[in-house]
Amino acid sequence: MAQKFNKILIANRGEIALRIIRTCREMGIKTVAIYSTADRESLHVRFADEAVCIGPPASAESYLSIPKIMAAVEITNADAVHPGYGFLSENADFAEICQDYGIKFIGPRPEHIRNMGDKITAKDTMIRAGVPVVPGDGTLLKSAEDGMTRAETMGYPVMIKATAGGGGKGMRIVTRKEDFVNLWNSARAEAKASFGNDGIYMEKYIVQPRHIEIQVIGDQNGKVIHLSERDCSVQRRHQKLLEECPSPFMTDELRQKMGEAAIKAGEAIGYEGVGTVEFLVDANRNFYFMEMNTRIQVEHPVTEESIDHDLIKEQIKVAYGEPLSGQNYYPKGHVIECRINAEDPWNDFRPSPGKITSFHSSKGHGVRVDTHVYAGYTVSPYYDSMIAKLIVRAPTRAEAITKMERALDEFIVEGIKTTVPFHQWLLKQDDFRNGDFDTGWLGKQNMPK
Amino acid sequence: MAQKFNKILIANRGEIALRIIRTCREMGIKTVAIYSTADRESLHVRFADEAVCIGPPASAESYLSIPKIMAAVEITNADAVHPGYGFLSENADFAEICQDYGIKFIGPRPEHIRNMGDKITAKDTMIRAGVPVVPGDGTLLKSAEDGMTRAETMGYPVMIKATAGGGGKGMRIVTRKEDFVNLWNSARAEAKASFGNDGIYMEKYIVQPRHIEIQVIGDQNGKVIHLSERDCSVQRRHQKLLEECPSPFMTDELRQKMGEAAIKAGEAIGYEGVGTVEFLVDANRNFYFMEMNTRIQVEHPVTEESIDHDLIKEQIKVAYGEPLSGQNYYPKGHVIECRINAEDPWNDFRPSPGKITSFHSSKGHGVRVDTHVYAGYTVSPYYDSMIAKLIVRAPTRAEAITKMERALDEFIVEGIKTTVPFHQWLLKQDDFRNGDFDTGWLGKQNMPK
Repeated sequence: MAQKFNKILIANRGEIALRIIRTCREMGIKTVAIYSTADRESLHVRFADEAVCIGPPASAESYLSIPKIMAAVEITNADAVHPGYGFLSENADFAEICQDYGIKFIGPRPEHIRNMGDKITAKDTMIRAGVPVVPGDGTLLKSAEDGMTRAETMGYPVMIKATAGGGGKGMRIVTRKEDFVNLWNSARAEAKASFGNDGIYMEKYIVQPRHIEIQVIGDQNGKVIHLSERDCSVQRRHQKLLEECPSPFMTDELRQKMGEAAIKAGEAIGYEGVGTVEFLVDANRNFYFMEMNTRIQVEHPVTEESIDHDLIKEQIKVAYGEPLSGQNYYPKGHVIECRINAEDPWNDFRPSPGKITSFHSSKGHGVRVDTHVYAGYTVSPYYDSMIAKLIVRAPTRAEAITKMERALDEFIVEGIKTTVPFHQWLLKQDDFRNGDFDTGWLGKQNMPK
Repeated sequence: MAQKFNKILIANRGEIALRIIRTCREMGIKTVAIYSTADRESLHVRFADEAVCIGPPASAESYLSIPKIMAAVEITNADAVHPGYGFLSENADFAEICQDYGIKFIGPRPEHIRNMGDKITAKDTMIRAGVPVVPGDGTLLKSAEDGMTRAETMGYPVMIKATAGGGGKGMRIVTRKEDFVNLWNSARAEAKASFGNDGIYMEKYIVQPRHIEIQVIGDQNGKVIHLSERDCSVQRRHQKLLEECPSPFMTDELRQKMGEAAIKAGEAIGYEGVGTVEFLVDANRNFYFMEMNTRIQVEHPVTEESIDHDLIKEQIKVAYGEPLSGQNYYPKGHVIECRINAEDPWNDFRPSPGKITSFHSSKGHGVRVDTHVYAGYTVSPYYDSMIAKLIVRAPTRAEAITKMERALDEFIVEGIKTTVPFHQWLLKQDDFRNGDFDTGWLGKQNMPK
């Protein structure tokens, strides 16, 4: 029954492709890398057993091109596809096509991707499963007037959001009636431009929310376990910059409750594979389902270091039918991850692509760096600006902060700007050190110029 | 009482200097690097708070020059010296001079270095402490005739060894009487040339011995604990190439006994600091004291990853007077370390200094690399050829081997030869995989050319 894969095609690039290759090698599974012409020199190409060039730099013609990827699967005779994160990882059509071709898509079933990808369906599913959600019935607003009527009942502040949204696009906080129409118009315009869909819904805006997510994994027998939380409240315009586990805001009781809710969420749909249930947690430790990500996440190493397990390995194992033992996992010590982006933090985080002339990644006890770059590598302007994830583990949060400061000091990238100085600044802030921050905290800080 | 150091001068270079700097930074202790003119571009210079050039490349005029190092201590107002391994780390005079200057030498007291540094005194000390030693009374041989008479009583094979020896120098195995005189002459000549001392003693040669060592640490109150073992039996001409923990030959009972013996050894002399008690273990799991290294060892990360503690931190803490809790530490999972040397393994391990044109160190979950090199770094012919230590941890030995194979495959060094291919070969050998090897095993293998 549990049939190991022979060869996995990794439908992704950069650090996550490399990271998946590592686990496949350790599992004795052959790997196929795909790459655009911009990524010829990438390490994921070098370290895979086979590599197929699938097109020009533009993602639409390479990493997002389902026909080209399926052709690469066919040519190389791969029996499974790992989508990583981003690109096609939450594309239900792609998962379905893989299924039709008899290729295992390493991720949930197409209907789960589809259901969780639509915010309203996702929320309805959670309500039925008994998982607390943000107040707001999730139905489409018919008009600005309809929205204003509902907001009166719900009480300001409210959040209006694109049904097809993500990454903060088509999302606005409305704190008073007078602003409603303007924000409604701009949210719709942005949603239309970004997703080709200007459907807008409304929910109660949670004040001073923490973004705390629960990692889950489900097997093919309907068993779902949780692997505790990651706190991702340090955000800039809804983009995560630093993640940690345990959350400094967590209590044993809250972890228990949130873990149970996340398992309920997964079990309600018979979820298979790794997934993340994202919650907002308010100042009184009430928590509300936000969305479910039906893929491995960027910040999964936080959990890996925290529970000392390889999540990609677990993901592959459930994908070939191995059953879970049923035990949840709890954090040991403290883990922090900083995302190192090729951006100029003191210039509004403007992307800083270009050639890396010198590179030294932090090392030593309790330090892990996931990266695809090296001295001589050129950071392409075509893709995500993240060049590395710097992860540390230590017995306590204070020690983890100190270790991260040490690790940041020795993270050397020359030739381009990076967000290293931002993280050095962040770790010095009293609010951060005291664990006293929510998702809006960073936006209110005066950062160095 | 327990007074933290303000500033530690690191009387060393390369990866160990860098590794000590990392821990000091995490402890909030300032660091001073010293460097020869050959090491201007070294990372230990870059990452220390201060750096002092102490002379030309030749070690005798730089890293071994006590007056120059003491001048650097004076100039920078350091209050402690960390000697690392090699160089002056087991030089009792240096420890004494530090003491006279009121500078804390981070290591044992001078008399312990002296006593353990002299093989005969060390052995006598162990016999008195009730620690099993290799048969042989350890007294100087008066002549070849004296040796042959003793060998008849002890029974061949015997080992003749320089009293001042180390690293295999001045050491010969004699399996029959007819060879005695020749081997005696060559051992004496080598001892004289290497150490300026041709004193030779004799002991029973242990057949098919394993080199298994116990890490200990003692505090200033006379408390000594052990941190379990490292198996260093994969050796080439008495040089360790790969170390692991647990030893594949270990049993719980043997670990208990060897741990107790190591503690006895440390307590007998009131040992302070980290140290390693090296044993030979024969095929029947009898173990014999070989020597005690009174310093941090190259392979200490094996223990760090195995028990998840920072040994340099523990070493510094006992050096400023912090007491130990008294609990021993036992391995979790399996850890393997490969020493990556700038040598051509298929050409008799000939040193391969030169410029590293491209460098990628292995990464990912459970992988640690301690190194001071980077793309563009020039490996000097003046010093030790080790350029990196590649360490992996995994739940089982089989998984650790697979992970190490993966990590070796992605360890890329261009411009010079390294021992990576040797380790790739080694990990494929059935005897290694079965844990079926002793210190003589490697010498009998037909390695690729």
